[in-house]
Amino acid sequence: MDIVLASGSPRRRELLETLGLTFTVCPAKGEENAPSGIGPAKTVEALSLAKAQEVRQLYPDSLIIAADTIVWADGEMLGKPKTPEEAAKMLTSLSGAEHEVYTGVTVIYGDKTLCQSECTKVCFRELEESEIASYVESGEPMDKAGAYGIQGKAALMVRRLEGDYFNVMGLPLCRLGQMLKAIGVKIL
Amino acid sequence: MDIVLASGSPRRRELLETLGLTFTVCPAKGEENAPSGIGPAKTVEALSLAKAQEVRQLYPDSLIIAADTIVWADGEMLGKPKTPEEAAKMLTSLSGAEHEVYTGVTVIYGDKTLCQSECTKVCFRELEESEIASYVESGEPMDKAGAYGIQGKAALMVRRLEGDYFNVMGLPLCRLGQMLKAIGVKIL
Repeated sequence: MDIVLASGSPRRRELLETLGLTFTVCPAKGEENAPSGIGPAKTVEALSLAKAQEVRQLYPDSLIIAADTIVWADGEMLGKPKTPEEAAKMLTSLSGAEHEVYTGVTVIYGDKTLCQSECTKVCFRELEESEIASYVESGEPMDKAGAYGIQGKAALMVRRLEGDYFNVMGLPLCRLGQMLKAIGVKIL
Repeated sequence: MDIVLASGSPRRRELLETLGLTFTVCPAKGEENAPSGIGPAKTVEALSLAKAQEVRQLYPDSLIIAADTIVWADGEMLGKPKTPEEAAKMLTSLSGAEHEVYTGVTVIYGDKTLCQSECTKVCFRELEESEIASYVESGEPMDKAGAYGIQGKAALMVRRLEGDYFNVMGLPLCRLGQMLKAIGVKIL
């Protein structure tokens, strides 16, 4: 069975490789918008479904895996920062507080479509201004939702989390494994 | 300032490298035993302290970082399995249940010694016998306390955790960063 990962994220690719899967990468353009006002869980589910359906057009016989991740703080979505200033502002808002990371996952194979989401709570310690400045200067925040990468130096800022760690990296591995099992693919 | 990691664990080495630190690796023999009956937190603290003090003899002018990790399930310590059968038995006991991972960390530099520990709760989903057999066969459990490595295929078995993910890998990065800061080393 051919597997296609409908995502260009290097972190998702690494995670799938960790599981020992062989797959093709075909990033979805992801130009769909989710309907507004449906909340974070339904939003990432809808966006991951749209990505999976888009790539499915190109690989109709393959098993498609798509995901979409958002950072949700104080009832608002934090996207990828557009400038270093915006990154610093996001990190300041996360400092000493708890936020949520939602990832929606869609798996399509044959006539089966599974679409689910996972939420992980992330708690940052209080950050000093100089720490935020130094982290922004490292460049790490710039291509990441919420302006941090938990698998990088942001590990120094995350005091604790509740839920699936890999979900924060962009792919909830335990849930994905169970979804694949339900579709007939055992990877353990 | 020279930094020495008093541990042979490749996972701890990788984590320290992630933080951008340059350091020498000098594994402690760790032949000390902790006093019995002091509970998991004090046990890993005592063992990490003994490792740090051992390596300090060889590098008296360096900053020493040592750590010790144990898996604690149902009031008992799970060490590294000695046989595949023992690994399967440990994984069966962890299946569908919650356990704790404790890591003690000691930092010594000059006349300062800091010794702390961190606890992370880990919750496994229900595992099928065939999944346990397949995971044991992969060889991954054999050099790991509790018979699993969360950064490998065991990601498929961990439904959720509460606390620091990196603590489960063997080094609580957020706490270590704060300890280093207290000793005058800023890495962020």
